[in-house]
Amino acid sequence: MVGRLREEKVFKDPVHRYIHVRDRLIWDLIGASEFQRLRRIRQLGTSYVTFHGAEHSRFNHSLGVYEIMRRLLAQFEQRLLFSFSEEERLLCLSAALLHDIGHGPYSHSFEKVFHTEHEEWTRHILVGDTQVNRILHGVSSDFPHKVAAVIGKTYENPLVTSLISSQIDADRMDYLLRDTYYTGTNYGSFDIERILRVLRPHGDKLVVKHTGMHAVEDYIAARYQMYWQVYFHRVTRSAEVILRKIFERARDLYRDGYAFQWHPVHFIPLFEQSITLEQYLALDESTAMFYMNEWCNEKDEILRDLAQRFVNRRLFKYVEYAEKVESVEWKREIDELFHAVGINPSYYLGVDSPSDLPYDVYRSGEDGDRTPIYLLMPDDSLVELSKRSVIVESISGKRQYDHKLYYPLDFLEDGTRDPNIVEEIKRRLRVQQ
Amino acid sequence: MVGRLREEKVFKDPVHRYIHVRDRLIWDLIGASEFQRLRRIRQLGTSYVTFHGAEHSRFNHSLGVYEIMRRLLAQFEQRLLFSFSEEERLLCLSAALLHDIGHGPYSHSFEKVFHTEHEEWTRHILVGDTQVNRILHGVSSDFPHKVAAVIGKTYENPLVTSLISSQIDADRMDYLLRDTYYTGTNYGSFDIERILRVLRPHGDKLVVKHTGMHAVEDYIAARYQMYWQVYFHRVTRSAEVILRKIFERARDLYRDGYAFQWHPVHFIPLFEQSITLEQYLALDESTAMFYMNEWCNEKDEILRDLAQRFVNRRLFKYVEYAEKVESVEWKREIDELFHAVGINPSYYLGVDSPSDLPYDVYRSGEDGDRTPIYLLMPDDSLVELSKRSVIVESISGKRQYDHKLYYPLDFLEDGTRDPNIVEEIKRRLRVQQ
Amino acid sequence: MVGRLREEKVFKDPVHRYIHVRDRLIWDLIGASEFQRLRRIRQLGTSYVTFHGAEHSRFNHSLGVYEIMRRLLAQFEQRLLFSFSEEERLLCLSAALLHDIGHGPYSHSFEKVFHTEHEEWTRHILVGDTQVNRILHGVSSDFPHKVAAVIGKTYENPLVTSLISSQIDADRMDYLLRDTYYTGTNYGSFDIERILRVLRPHGDKLVVKHTGMHAVEDYIAARYQMYWQVYFHRVTRSAEVILRKIFERARDLYRDGYAFQWHPVHFIPLFEQSITLEQYLALDESTAMFYMNEWCNEKDEILRDLAQRFVNRRLFKYVEYAEKVESVEWKREIDELFHAVGINPSYYLGVDSPSDLPYDVYRSGEDGDRTPIYLLMPDDSLVELSKRSVIVESISGKRQYDHKLYYPLDFLEDGTRDPNIVEEIKRRLRVQQ
Amino acid sequence: MVGRLREEKVFKDPVHRYIHVRDRLIWDLIGASEFQRLRRIRQLGTSYVTFHGAEHSRFNHSLGVYEIMRRLLAQFEQRLLFSFSEEERLLCLSAALLHDIGHGPYSHSFEKVFHTEHEEWTRHILVGDTQVNRILHGVSSDFPHKVAAVIGKTYENPLVTSLISSQIDADRMDYLLRDTYYTGTNYGSFDIERILRVLRPHGDKLVVKHTGMHAVEDYIAARYQMYWQVYFHRVTRSAEVILRKIFERARDLYRDGYAFQWHPVHFIPLFEQSITLEQYLALDESTAMFYMNEWCNEKDEILRDLAQRFVNRRLFKYVEYAEKVESVEWKREIDELFHAVGINPSYYLGVDSPSDLPYDVYRSGEDGDRTPIYLLMPDDSLVELSKRSVIVESISGKRQYDHKLYYPLDFLEDGTRDPNIVEEIKRRLRVQQ
Repeated sequence: MVGRLREEKVFKDPVHRYIHVRDRLIWDLIGASEFQRLRRIRQLGTSYVTFHGAEHSRFNHSLGVYEIMRRLLAQFEQRLLFSFSEEERLLCLSAALLHDIGHGPYSHSFEKVFHTEHEEWTRHILVGDTQVNRILHGVSSDFPHKVAAVIGKTYENPLVTSLISSQIDADRMDYLLRDTYYTGTNYGSFDIERILRVLRPHGDKLVVKHTGMHAVEDYIAARYQMYWQVYFHRVTRSAEVILRKIFERARDLYRDGYAFQWHPVHFIPLFEQSITLEQYLALDESTAMFYMNEWCNEKDEILRDLAQRFVNRRLFKYVEYAEKVESVEWKREIDELFHAVGINPSYYLGVDSPSDLPYDVYRSGEDGDRTPIYLLMPDDSLVELSKRSVIVESISGKRQYDHKLYYPLDFLEDGTRDPNIVEEIKRRLRVQQ
Repeated sequence: MVGRLREEKVFKDPVHRYIHVRDRLIWDLIGASEFQRLRRIRQLGTSYVTFHGAEHSRFNHSLGVYEIMRRLLAQFEQRLLFSFSEEERLLCLSAALLHDIGHGPYSHSFEKVFHTEHEEWTRHILVGDTQVNRILHGVSSDFPHKVAAVIGKTYENPLVTSLISSQIDADRMDYLLRDTYYTGTNYGSFDIERILRVLRPHGDKLVVKHTGMHAVEDYIAARYQMYWQVYFHRVTRSAEVILRKIFERARDLYRDGYAFQWHPVHFIPLFEQSITLEQYLALDESTAMFYMNEWCNEKDEILRDLAQRFVNRRLFKYVEYAEKVESVEWKREIDELFHAVGINPSYYLGVDSPSDLPYDVYRSGEDGDRTPIYLLMPDDSLVELSKRSVIVESISGKRQYDHKLYYPLDFLEDGTRDPNIVEEIKRRLRVQQ
Repeated sequence: MVGRLREEKVFKDPVHRYIHVRDRLIWDLIGASEFQRLRRIRQLGTSYVTFHGAEHSRFNHSLGVYEIMRRLLAQFEQRLLFSFSEEERLLCLSAALLHDIGHGPYSHSFEKVFHTEHEEWTRHILVGDTQVNRILHGVSSDFPHKVAAVIGKTYENPLVTSLISSQIDADRMDYLLRDTYYTGTNYGSFDIERILRVLRPHGDKLVVKHTGMHAVEDYIAARYQMYWQVYFHRVTRSAEVILRKIFERARDLYRDGYAFQWHPVHFIPLFEQSITLEQYLALDESTAMFYMNEWCNEKDEILRDLAQRFVNRRLFKYVEYAEKVESVEWKREIDELFHAVGINPSYYLGVDSPSDLPYDVYRSGEDGDRTPIYLLMPDDSLVELSKRSVIVESISGKRQYDHKLYYPLDFLEDGTRDPNIVEEIKRRLRVQQ
Repeated sequence: MVGRLREEKVFKDPVHRYIHVRDRLIWDLIGASEFQRLRRIRQLGTSYVTFHGAEHSRFNHSLGVYEIMRRLLAQFEQRLLFSFSEEERLLCLSAALLHDIGHGPYSHSFEKVFHTEHEEWTRHILVGDTQVNRILHGVSSDFPHKVAAVIGKTYENPLVTSLISSQIDADRMDYLLRDTYYTGTNYGSFDIERILRVLRPHGDKLVVKHTGMHAVEDYIAARYQMYWQVYFHRVTRSAEVILRKIFERARDLYRDGYAFQWHPVHFIPLFEQSITLEQYLALDESTAMFYMNEWCNEKDEILRDLAQRFVNRRLFKYVEYAEKVESVEWKREIDELFHAVGINPSYYLGVDSPSDLPYDVYRSGEDGDRTPIYLLMPDDSLVELSKRSVIVESISGKRQYDHKLYYPLDFLEDGTRDPNIVEEIKRRLRVQQ
């Protein structure tokens, strides 16, 4: 499985023009059924309800991350900056390609409700009984574990890890450009060729040559814009809240022994928290959407309504709060008022916070998670980016709170509820008349 | 339902930048469940197996056709060329938006196997018991029928019809630009703003001002390129052939009383040719993909193998022929040779011809289907485009035949078959050793 | 001259796709010789020595500003937000088109050396004996003065003025997009369609609907990037410094009675500070470049060397300083050291500061010059942008100093100078060996 | 001069994103004054009067041709298809960079009137007493002559020549993409990355792998569109005709001993047909434009009027003819009628034919000039492109005649001429009333 293809293969890609594959290993991994499954999982979950162009899959993105990694390594070699061993080269490429392979359908809602983690599943897929594992094994017997270590950030060479997950890694560079392209917005664009030119291996870090400061600043600003304008868009989050409520309602009904018209075979292992790798891999967004469609016809009023809302894009409205909503007294009072007009707040009041998102704006090191960005100065010293850039400092200095409470305005206005209580609810939710 | 929205709504669109909605009617139609269902049907069917970016839905395209129509009508009004009555304006916009609403999952394979027609379903959805029908009815009681007439090309005013379906209509203009964008190819791009400027209502025809001849020539060449480079791509067609065989196998098994592990509830009405509108609307690509996934584990070897091929992109190879394959003697001989090595040719030999495609290159009027393009000359006479353009004449003059026979090369080479017969088959299929 | 054209005229424009002209007034102004002259003056002065694509003219940009204004007014009308009187509509369009008409060749160097101001010349062209004046006069006898008042920011209706010159005016929107396009960088791009949608006339101000906050933030960040990455690029500024020195040397030689080989007829009125409107209009970049070419062969060593440097792009190097260079002691010492090795510091040491530039980053109102940007909140109150945006606040809060001293490193290293003094100079200029 | 730069240099380029320079030779050539002079000569001559964005210089284009060549050679090496010797590699790169170095201002008009040829001047610059020559000489003493041989198509290795000048060479690929970008049209775009992938050295030819047929077809169609929509645009040609007449008038006046107000020093060697290399190199478009500006004030009525027309874009109208105009009787009659109303036909009637252009549509070998395009078939045979492509065949099969006669309609309508004769002229010129 190791070795070069007789002839280079290419994929036409809207973002990188072409994706080039020369290693047999990469070609085989792309053909593995676990990788092909990523075609059936959207990159941006529910964002397509807001930006109809955002229908691209994780397959799409994974190829892009691989291509950026390939170009970055080629740059290093060509300009005699650095050269990995053949195994570490393949390690970088494989980890880039496979870093998202553990994702399930609508991961974020899914994981929140069912307490699973895609990072965990990625590891299972890499080291478990899968086609991907067998292909990686062809390189060497510990290669699958090495790939898992790189993705899990425990690999011995931190430079390799930082190519995949740092503040300026192949993953983020691809998703900004890709999500920008498919949503049709311009916010996430930046000059990736220049960024690739100013990135430098420096000891065990990936750093930025000081002349590239403004280019990186532009990348950070692009990320900030995408965060607020796309990833955290209120309409997208409304769909996400409803999805979560659907999963919760279905699980609760199952636990209560409810007789589904269409038995949710694929979800039961999740409801029972006993899901196997094989069962997990059978889940994709067509499975999830199949059940959504079926649940539009369930007898249970709540599940049926929520499913119809999701499928037909009849979403919740929201009100914004500066503080975390859960903790405050008035949330309990609104719950009670909802009960009083016959709406179950457990399924019809949803709280959403930016911290529910996997995306984050730049932080200058406060969380150990992602290495900050260092500038390599003319005297070979390293300076953390936000020390030099007022823009980056402004973004990384402050946390922005933007908590939202989602609720079904249409229910309140359907004419079947006590008008005084509805009035009171709307007052508290500051609904503009 | 008729009337203007208080505030214009916009959709961010990668192709047209923004899609503008000012009419309440259009806003309501977009919200209808039958229209939202188009989100779950890909615009280019199986093309995503070749061009991974081509994951965009018919929802996407339908909004685009509407937007082009809106701009075209605005142009006419603004430049005082023409003005439709308010009802005909809404008719044009609605027909543009809804022209594809009858499509099912992977329509072309689907329709071929199950003998349904999306045009027929479009009519049912417009005039049947649907949300779309109720919304259209709000304009006037015969409005749903009028929309159906426009889409069905029987409407009394041929000018209206030609805006939706002629050689240079809103439908084609959108799909060329859109499919170009999502595939990441450049082939289908043309200067739509210039085309919109040179289109002129002329009696009951939509014609092109003679100064726009080269712009239209460019559009026709774009179409020709997309046809050969994208729509009729051999890999896409291979996936299409396999899909057809899957549907056929499932149908045949059902007819033979085979006991499915997962009972194909949603397909049975199709197998029995007794499907209702409600059952049809429940079918989308997540439904189809759900069954594909399940069929990957069926006991029946053929159905299982074909489903796995489709899901994991393990496709057929092909050989090209100048003549229609079905008619010739050697096809029967190859069938026999396949039988002799234990491969069922009914499911493992697939013929595909360009005429199986809904797309066509420009024809100068040989089929009555689509009005040809007329140039409006300085003396007010009309000249058919191919009379003036050598490029268009070259494309429209000749039919290109490009029949392909698809077969599973991997089966022939799996080492379990009689090597002499395999040799003979490969010789006849001209497989390069 | 007032009235509509029989048929709309269009210009193909790379930035706005098409520029549409429907008013005879605008068509005639574009044809005026004073406006055609803008074809011979580059929009970005010497930037083309850094970004070879930046060869676009002020003609280009002026059409773009007009087009943005036209779209903005059309938006207001179409969405029933606002409607100017016919005269004020023409006033907005004319002022947009003509706002830069007074520019001379390489304005900034030019104005610094010869103490002229393009704003002053703009006024002269509008109200003086010119084709432009005669065309404007066709609207009404005080129309030329009104256009001058709008451009000069003294017009009675501040809303009109703010469309042309405020922090988010048609001028800036065009130059960011246009300079981005021609330089081939991506830094200055932003979503202009969205900005046009969220701009609102509000009393006598042009404000931004609060939902557009992030879009405007993106525009401000784009401006900031262009400022540092393009407008203030060190190589461009080096060429600018040399140009200034050339003009100074030529003027000084003239004053000293030097006999030019090619008598600088076109520059003498400038040297003598007695230039007429007609003489000014005869100056464009081909005139300036013609003399540069000639001066490459002058007897005077300094003028010849400087001209050759400019024409053949043999530029000065620079060293950066935190403080204003002029004021400090060591500048005088370096001057002396230069004298000591036979290099005239008056023409071979050049200071450049960002404040020499007409572009500025966003300021929240510290200078009265440009109205700050206000957000229109849901409760109809106005909030200044930097109060809401951490990014804008970070940019507008601080002044960045970036003074540079330019000098001819090649001279110091030509092997003809006292090595000890050269060593000392290089030490002081921190030249890396 | 031979050798690699310590650090790669890049130029930001709108068309190719970045232009990469690693060879000291190339870096030095770019810095040579003869190459920098190309900054002062526009790539598309007078096209900017039609497409205001088309202000890009030959400097711009020359860098682009070099970059395409660099990428093509890198492709060949990387994919182990072919590798030139170090000298031939530098030869390819230098020839690509310098192929246009002999161009003068507005070459086509210029050469027609003054009987010079830029190819000839290119040779002089390469082998004469120039900076470029000295730099090339640094490679080897016969290197300048080799570069001249490649550009002159007499070099011994035809493969090298065909990279620079064949039907699908680096020159044409760059100008199509570049002219498309700067004009803002979309006509000339094609997938250059794919073309570079399918080009193959094959013996002494550059051929196209058969799988790339449609990509090349698209390139040929792009060329065809650019030819008709941009290069041969009637407005551009009108400016070209006027320019020719200006040069002719100035030359005729000089020959007749006319006393110019501004003595045309730079043009006299041309008028006298005795121009030296040094004098030629002093000519660029700023020189030409300087004289145009001066001639706007000449006493001679004809020269003054023509110069004003060119400078202020007051162009001639035209009438089209199927046959060559010069030969026909009526041209003589129109000449006489012009004389009769006091307009000198020698300077006010201009004939223009497509064959006056350096661009041509694809020809399948009828002229020996440019090698046709061959497809490399699976069996290693070569097939000429137009044998396989109906589109290419349609373009290459026929010559299109499109002769135009340009004349000053405004003169005829200025009210000072005999109305009957004017009527007669307009009738013959088919002017629409």
